[in-house]
Amino acid sequence: MSAPFTHHGGDLASARAHFGGAAADWIDLSTGINPQPWPGAAGIAIDWRVLPDRTALADLETQAAGHFGADPLLCRAVPGSEAGLRLLAPLLGLPGRHLALSYRTHAEAFENAEPGWEPFARPQGATTLIIANPNNPDGQLRTRAELLALLARQEALGGWLIVDEAFADCRTETSVCDLVANTRRLIVLRSFGKFFGLAGVRLGFVVAPRAVLAQLGHRLGDWPVNAAALALGMAAYADTAWIAGTRSALPVMAAALDALLARYGLVAEGDCPMFRLIRTPRAQTMFTGLARRRILTRPFAEQPHLLRFGLPADGAALDRLDQALGADLADG
Amino acid sequence: MSAPFTHHGGDLASARAHFGGAAADWIDLSTGINPQPWPGAAGIAIDWRVLPDRTALADLETQAAGHFGADPLLCRAVPGSEAGLRLLAPLLGLPGRHLALSYRTHAEAFENAEPGWEPFARPQGATTLIIANPNNPDGQLRTRAELLALLARQEALGGWLIVDEAFADCRTETSVCDLVANTRRLIVLRSFGKFFGLAGVRLGFVVAPRAVLAQLGHRLGDWPVNAAALALGMAAYADTAWIAGTRSALPVMAAALDALLARYGLVAEGDCPMFRLIRTPRAQTMFTGLARRRILTRPFAEQPHLLRFGLPADGAALDRLDQALGADLADG
Repeated sequence: MSAPFTHHGGDLASARAHFGGAAADWIDLSTGINPQPWPGAAGIAIDWRVLPDRTALADLETQAAGHFGADPLLCRAVPGSEAGLRLLAPLLGLPGRHLALSYRTHAEAFENAEPGWEPFARPQGATTLIIANPNNPDGQLRTRAELLALLARQEALGGWLIVDEAFADCRTETSVCDLVANTRRLIVLRSFGKFFGLAGVRLGFVVAPRAVLAQLGHRLGDWPVNAAALALGMAAYADTAWIAGTRSALPVMAAALDALLARYGLVAEGDCPMFRLIRTPRAQTMFTGLARRRILTRPFAEQPHLLRFGLPADGAALDRLDQALGADLADG
Repeated sequence: MSAPFTHHGGDLASARAHFGGAAADWIDLSTGINPQPWPGAAGIAIDWRVLPDRTALADLETQAAGHFGADPLLCRAVPGSEAGLRLLAPLLGLPGRHLALSYRTHAEAFENAEPGWEPFARPQGATTLIIANPNNPDGQLRTRAELLALLARQEALGGWLIVDEAFADCRTETSVCDLVANTRRLIVLRSFGKFFGLAGVRLGFVVAPRAVLAQLGHRLGDWPVNAAALALGMAAYADTAWIAGTRSALPVMAAALDALLARYGLVAEGDCPMFRLIRTPRAQTMFTGLARRRILTRPFAEQPHLLRFGLPADGAALDRLDQALGADLADG
């Protein structure tokens, strides 16, 4: 398995270099990015000439906080939730712990992070626990009560809990953004690009106590995000009709993918409609078989039995996947 | 003097809140950003849907390194040179020293930075010295020989020299980008938005030894800059005709501003054609007088005799400034 495909999803250039084909030939199912993006981006002219406006930044943070159900005073824009986590981790100054099966950055962000943590095992000493909800790549969803129990344990030991809600936009009932307060040791990360399907913008948010935001701001400076992030983020988070429609549409698209996978005996697991995970001993050969047919999925170096699928954008993409899975199984 | 105007330039929203007027009424001379931006931005369609492409990032870094005269292997894109410095400072782990009169971020980026450093005073112990060349706001330009002498002193004590070349695009003969090497303790910062007049893009570069770039990359993650930064940066750094024309044009525009200021007895100092600094006991009242006439300049809280002017974009802006200076002096 080649390293580029197990490092992160979305590396279509490496896929083309390895397997050939023009960019237009490929269907990229290697990320968890909504393939039906918010349609307003093309209609917004960006003024690149001036420095990003501080008032516009504050307005965006307030608008986004409304979408998250967070206190606007505790919500700060960052250039992507991944960059936000990498900046936060050293500021908190504690050893990191993350789930064995988790987003790769959860391990990379901390010095000497300890993997393989079981959420309800007895914790030892002050640590920064990070958990994605829903989790990536297995889509496991935890309740607010479970997260609050983890937070109480962390606080009792002088630790922190970071909840990565990068994929939470469809499951608002489990978000803990509203619980972040200056008196709690709870931080939530949110992502703009995944739900809105605009990953190139590089926009995320950190919801955290004021003292943490002040340190984060010191590392980022006065212009944490670019002019397009301000303009597109503001308009997209205000588009409540599109947001509601997309919250309904993504589970339907995920169900169609699940039904297709089921026809090949593959059981999609987890509770996140933005990507689906299968477990099969054929995961590695299936990755290669699909890539030869110009469909990029997401394999995992240390879990060779897993394969993650993003949502096909439409019926044509579903049909392509159907044919490719059929041909791959016939080969295999 | 109100804090927003002495913190950084470019805060037109605060200027409007304090002094009134619509955005279109104002001429913003409070930054050192080229007012005649690279004209290609509007013609480039940005695909915001996908994650920024790693191959495109490597291509941009190679293209920019060519513009800087740097080794492409030692050049990394960052989301603005200011963010780059704020990330670098704690990685180097040494006390910071900066010029008394310097870019505000030079002090803020370091814990317990020591101001008031005289460049050729005897250094004490290992420090990270930062010096902008040309310096901001006084435009002082140092030769490569001077910088090499500083570097030798820093290296002898186990320190680092960071040269902030954010405003260096017009003065390539003094750049030390080509001297950065894995065996030297020299780091250079470059800015895209100032020379190309596209500050909203948030793109800068760090030229540094590989070990420093590896640490920096660890803090920034796999997508350090947004999709527009990749597309616009690549096209703009490749536009050698526009670059050459702008290197000729900016000094002419600066000379026109100098001549105008001289008619009011004001002597512009320094050797940077992207902004001009005057020293006058009337600096604070002149800032207010110009702002009342919808021209924003850059005052300094701790140096109340200084006022910095960006370049007026055209003859009409020069005329507005001429009238405003005349009316202000008549008032004063």
